[in-house]
Amino acid sequence: MASKAEVEHPRKAFGWAARDPSGHLSPFNFSRRETGEKDVAFKVLYCGICHSDLHMAKNEWRFSIYPLVPGHEITGVVTEVGSKVEKFKVGDKVGVGCLVDSCRTCQNCSNNLENYCPQFTLTYGAKYKDGTITYGGYSDSMVADEHFVVRIPDGLPLDVAAPLLCAGITVYSPLRYFALDKPGMHVGVVGLGGLGHMAVKFAKAFGAKVTVISTSPNKKEEAIQHLGVDSFLISRDQDQMKAAKGTLDGIIDTVSAVHPLFPIIELLKSPGKVVLVGVPEKPLELPVFSLLGRKIVTGSSIGGMKETQEMIDFAAEHNVKPDIEVIPIDYVNTAMERLHKADVKYRFVIDIGNTLKSSS
Amino acid sequence: MASKAEVEHPRKAFGWAARDPSGHLSPFNFSRRETGEKDVAFKVLYCGICHSDLHMAKNEWRFSIYPLVPGHEITGVVTEVGSKVEKFKVGDKVGVGCLVDSCRTCQNCSNNLENYCPQFTLTYGAKYKDGTITYGGYSDSMVADEHFVVRIPDGLPLDVAAPLLCAGITVYSPLRYFALDKPGMHVGVVGLGGLGHMAVKFAKAFGAKVTVISTSPNKKEEAIQHLGVDSFLISRDQDQMKAAKGTLDGIIDTVSAVHPLFPIIELLKSPGKVVLVGVPEKPLELPVFSLLGRKIVTGSSIGGMKETQEMIDFAAEHNVKPDIEVIPIDYVNTAMERLHKADVKYRFVIDIGNTLKSSS
Repeated sequence: MASKAEVEHPRKAFGWAARDPSGHLSPFNFSRRETGEKDVAFKVLYCGICHSDLHMAKNEWRFSIYPLVPGHEITGVVTEVGSKVEKFKVGDKVGVGCLVDSCRTCQNCSNNLENYCPQFTLTYGAKYKDGTITYGGYSDSMVADEHFVVRIPDGLPLDVAAPLLCAGITVYSPLRYFALDKPGMHVGVVGLGGLGHMAVKFAKAFGAKVTVISTSPNKKEEAIQHLGVDSFLISRDQDQMKAAKGTLDGIIDTVSAVHPLFPIIELLKSPGKVVLVGVPEKPLELPVFSLLGRKIVTGSSIGGMKETQEMIDFAAEHNVKPDIEVIPIDYVNTAMERLHKADVKYRFVIDIGNTLKSSS
Repeated sequence: MASKAEVEHPRKAFGWAARDPSGHLSPFNFSRRETGEKDVAFKVLYCGICHSDLHMAKNEWRFSIYPLVPGHEITGVVTEVGSKVEKFKVGDKVGVGCLVDSCRTCQNCSNNLENYCPQFTLTYGAKYKDGTITYGGYSDSMVADEHFVVRIPDGLPLDVAAPLLCAGITVYSPLRYFALDKPGMHVGVVGLGGLGHMAVKFAKAFGAKVTVISTSPNKKEEAIQHLGVDSFLISRDQDQMKAAKGTLDGIIDTVSAVHPLFPIIELLKSPGKVVLVGVPEKPLELPVFSLLGRKIVTGSSIGGMKETQEMIDFAAEHNVKPDIEVIPIDYVNTAMERLHKADVKYRFVIDIGNTLKSSS
C-alpha cells in the first residue's frame, strides 16, 4: 500500500524508518520536495546516530510522528541547487544538522539564534510550514533551504564531520557563549559519551584545562591517555569530589538521565556555571543554598546556523575530530541497542553512501 | 547565675535573646569586647527585623547558638573608635549588616566579596576567630572592625536606613551584578515582602520596568499605586502568567518557601535570568528543558562591604527608602508572630534607642 509519505512530494526518497514505539528501524520509501529556489539538494553519504534518535524512534519524548526517519548529523555532496542559491554549487560538500527551518523574523532568528526560534522546524519527526513531515538523514537524499546547510571544509572527512552537526555544536556553543573558551579556564565535563568527548576535545582546543566527571572508573585510562584530559573524577568517590570542590570555572553537563546537581555545583568556583546540555525527562533537584555565590545553572541547545558553520571551520582548522565507529545501515538496530548501553566510543556514523540500497 | 556571655568580655551589654527553639525573646545581659585598634564601637539606635531572625531564633537552619541575640540591620551613632581607625569618628552615623568579619585574604575578600568568603563571621549566632559568640543588634551597643561598618549618609534617617543593610543589599547586589540596573530592562520581582519591596524600589530607581509576581491578589492595588510597579501578576492565574511568557529580562525571586520554578522561568526572555535570594529549606524542582535558551538560574547572598556602602549612598541619593513599621522592643515577640504571617508592610524596625532599657 502506498503511504502518503511516498507520494506527497515529487522526488522519490528511500531510507530506514521506525514505525512504532518499538523503535525498530526498517526500509522505507518516501518522498522529498522538489529543489526550490533557495534549496540545496544533496546525496547523503554519512549520518551520525545521536542519542536523541533513540529517544525519538521509541517516542520517549511523546511527540514522534511515525513512520519516523531519524538522523540530524547528515553530510553529503550537493546534487542540485535552486536558482537563487548563493552559497553552494553542485559537488560541494555539505551538511545539515538539527534544524531545517525557522521563522527567520523573530529576535532570536535576527540574532543568528535560529536554535532558539519558537517556531523552528526539526530535521525529522516534525512538520514543515506546509504541513508535510520532515524526514532525517537515515536516507539517500536531503533537500533544505541553503540557510540551514553548512559547508564542510576540505580538511574534514564527511564521516568525521557528521557528529559535529549535533554533538559538536551542542558543546561548542556553550563553551563559547559562557566564556569557557580560553587558556586559564578549568572546564569540567560531566559524562563521557558522544557529547562529553566532543566537549573535552573543543575545550582542549581552546586551551582550557579539562576535568572529566564520570560514574565509570573504566573510562579513566582512555580519557587521560587518548583524549588528553587533565584529571578524571569518579562522581561516586566522595573524597575525590571533596578534594576538587571549588576548582572549576564552568561545567558542561552532558548527562541526560536524572542525576544529583549538588555535587556538581560544589565543584564550581564562586562564581562559576553549570551548563546542562542533556535533558532529563524529570526535573532535577536544585539545592538553592549551593547557588548563593552567584553560581549559575543554565541550559543550552545546539547552536545557530552562523555558529554551526564557525564551529565546523574551527574543527577543521584545529583538527577537532569526533571518534567514530562507522557502520553499515543494516547494523543500525544493533547500534541502537549498543548506544542504549553506552557501548560506543564515541559516536556511530552510518555509511549511507556505500550501504543504503533501495533494493534492500 | 552569671552566664559566660555576661562576663567573658569587659564591656557590659544588654539586649533581648532567644534561649531555645521556641524563639521567644526576653531580656539578656551579656558582654562585648573592648574597642580594639581597628574597631568602631557604637550605641545602637535602630535594628530591623529580618525574616532570618525568625528562622535563627527558632533554630530552623539548625546552627543557632543559644542564647541568641538576633539583628543584622543595625544602625546607631559612634561612641568610641580604636587608635588605628581611619574612616570613622565619635558621633558618626553608622551601620552594621550581616557580617562582622571575614578572612580578608582569600580571592573573594580581595575582590570586595567578603559575603562569599568561606570563613566569614555572621553578625549574630556565630563565632569570632577567638571562639567567642557574636551577638546582634537587638541590643544596646555594638563593636566591629571598621571594615565591616558602613557610613549612613545624612539624607537617610537611621530607622529607615536599617533594613537596607540586609534586605537592601540582598536585592541591590544581584540587580547590579546581573546587569538589570538599566532603563530598558524589564525586571520581575517574585514575592512582595521585605526583600521584594526593596527590589521594586531599587529596580525603579535604576529606571527599569517592574512586574511583581505574587500569590496575593490583595497586594496588587498598593503595589501599583504606592510602590509604582508597572504590572502585577497573580502567580496562580495561568492566563495572566501565559500572557506574560517571555517578557522579562531578569527576575529577583525573594520567596524562601518551596515553590515551583517552571512558571517563573517561563516568564523570562531567552536569554534571561532568575536570581534566587530566598533560600528554601528543601531543593526546588528544576525542569531542565525550560533552561535550554541559555536561561540562567542563579543565587545571590547579601553583598560585599564596598558594595554595601555604595548601595547605602545610592539609596540616600535616589531617595530609596524602605517602608517600615517602627516598634518598641517589648513588641518584638508579637512582631515575630506577625512577620511569620507576612503581616507587615514591609519591615519592622525596633526603636532600640528609645525603648531598650536595661532595667526592664
